[in-house]
Amino acid sequence: MVTDVKAVTHVRNIRYDKAAEALYIIDQSLLPNEEREIRLQTLAEMVEAIQTLRVRGAPAIGICAAYCLYLLARSIETDDPAAFLTQLQEYSARLEASRPTAVNLAWALREMEKTAATYAGNCRSALLDALYQKAISIHDDDIAKCLAISEYGLSLLKDGDGVLTHCNAGPLATSRYGTAQGPFLLAAERGMRLRVFADETRPLLQGARLTSYELHRAGVDVTLICDNMASMVMKNGWIQACFVGCDRIAANGDTANKIGTSGVAILAKHYGIPFYVLGPTSTIDMSCPDGAHIPIELRDPEEIKTLWYEKPMALSGVKCYNPSFDVTDHDLIAGIITEKGICRAPYQKTLASLFQ
Amino acid sequence: MVTDVKAVTHVRNIRYDKAAEALYIIDQSLLPNEEREIRLQTLAEMVEAIQTLRVRGAPAIGICAAYCLYLLARSIETDDPAAFLTQLQEYSARLEASRPTAVNLAWALREMEKTAATYAGNCRSALLDALYQKAISIHDDDIAKCLAISEYGLSLLKDGDGVLTHCNAGPLATSRYGTAQGPFLLAAERGMRLRVFADETRPLLQGARLTSYELHRAGVDVTLICDNMASMVMKNGWIQACFVGCDRIAANGDTANKIGTSGVAILAKHYGIPFYVLGPTSTIDMSCPDGAHIPIELRDPEEIKTLWYEKPMALSGVKCYNPSFDVTDHDLIAGIITEKGICRAPYQKTLASLFQ
Repeated sequence: MVTDVKAVTHVRNIRYDKAAEALYIIDQSLLPNEEREIRLQTLAEMVEAIQTLRVRGAPAIGICAAYCLYLLARSIETDDPAAFLTQLQEYSARLEASRPTAVNLAWALREMEKTAATYAGNCRSALLDALYQKAISIHDDDIAKCLAISEYGLSLLKDGDGVLTHCNAGPLATSRYGTAQGPFLLAAERGMRLRVFADETRPLLQGARLTSYELHRAGVDVTLICDNMASMVMKNGWIQACFVGCDRIAANGDTANKIGTSGVAILAKHYGIPFYVLGPTSTIDMSCPDGAHIPIELRDPEEIKTLWYEKPMALSGVKCYNPSFDVTDHDLIAGIITEKGICRAPYQKTLASLFQ
Repeated sequence: MVTDVKAVTHVRNIRYDKAAEALYIIDQSLLPNEEREIRLQTLAEMVEAIQTLRVRGAPAIGICAAYCLYLLARSIETDDPAAFLTQLQEYSARLEASRPTAVNLAWALREMEKTAATYAGNCRSALLDALYQKAISIHDDDIAKCLAISEYGLSLLKDGDGVLTHCNAGPLATSRYGTAQGPFLLAAERGMRLRVFADETRPLLQGARLTSYELHRAGVDVTLICDNMASMVMKNGWIQACFVGCDRIAANGDTANKIGTSGVAILAKHYGIPFYVLGPTSTIDMSCPDGAHIPIELRDPEEIKTLWYEKPMALSGVKCYNPSFDVTDHDLIAGIITEKGICRAPYQKTLASLFQ
């Protein structure tokens, strides 16, 4: 346990100490059993941290990579601008290859490279300062977007409400507030009482390991349930809204998110509970017409039988089906909450207006 | 691995070898990692086997207890009928106390005691033979009921159908065929191809550990999924019917079954898939007007965080809610399949007619 981490309400997943020029991350692979900050110094340590999910969540990976590239830039010892940029691009490519499918990782590295190119002719300290400021701005921009999303989300809740959430879209995956879990943290800061139910989210258990950890640590009243208990919790009258994150939103509002999300949406509809999707506008893919066009990643079937367990929980010959995501139909969604405001149906029109 | 067990298609959870006067059970606490028959000889072994869930499932416990009491009767060495009955009742009480809430356990022991009382005046061998025949008849009666339920269930399916099931109501919990999983075993025997999807059924994982084990072993095409994947599997068009067991059915058709069952029923309704409940008429409680009158057992919250795992999967301070069962509203149920036939809505009327 690191004192600095425990002293704040929010989990600080990425922390840059400018005085010491040191980058720290909470090692998410140890959560929730151990809360440990680790310092990333070498390229090898940075790549390993991203590859082994010590840092995870698309926005968090992007922020971390920006700081990493700044630190690596500090280690480049040439005075030749062209040689500097070549070396920086090599570092950037190595970082990017650590998780090739993470869109925010590539985006953040491109932003840093553009800044380096712009300031390459300046003196070394000005160049490094520009890179540092860019990393800070990538971080701050994410905080601002998460805060805006959280404010809009919280505006839909009232004191005493029960809210069900699925998977993890909190500060560990992003920055400071997170998206789907951000309103709960804001509420806690303001003394507003919410009762949050967190689906454990099989098979990777992000709800148990990360969401319940973040919320409990921040003083939010959180109750962990197995995914299959959501129906009963809703039937008990304990849930006034569902808040979930998103991985991609199609132009018609169909939303891909962690496997099980569509089931939560269908249960919510059955019980007359509004179901909201929270995410930045960067998640909206206007080139994707509907959910049928969103590719769904299939993960290793063995995860279902073996991950986390002391012994395999099913015969080795038994087949498994292990999709990472599912698509929630737009007509099950009461609202899509972005940093620019809350979109309601018809989504085809309201989502498009965000980009005009 | 015991050769005898592997040679048959069906899991033989309880096996009495009359020639050797020996009772064997599959030790369910070792499944699915090890398939081992153990022999129960002493009262202490019998009680321990029931208490530690080496034998589980209400009908299976009743059948096992009947054979146990017969074996114990063989060990009673008095010729005095009254002393014999007193000793037998003492054994019976000890067996019954091993799982006081198991209705079938008490019922089977009462049946054995009545038989003993009836034959107490006869010679020892006639008395013991009557007890043996009673145990066999309790076993055979369960097989017959499960077979009838399975036949009615199978009549609703056609070659190539996909069926989703939740939790375990197969031969391990009953005898030979089981209830909700019985139609799949019958289909396999007849060369009919079904594609079964088994929910893993958190937190106790009966679907992973037991259902997928039984079905895979019997040659059924079974695919294990996490509970939260049911919506996607249905959306994919892979499911033509849902078959689940039941713990108690109220007079209006509301059905208590393993936690998560009501969620499956709501998803099935959303996707237009018929949802069926399978169970013997002994599960129907006409004195219970509706689901609101069925008490729901809450289990240890720590199970959600710690059971099966190498390390706890959530912070120790996080609250959990862990209900064992939920209630599925009768209007979500397309049919209730018993050994006497298939009841359809209005259940108030059709269930009552089973007892007339």
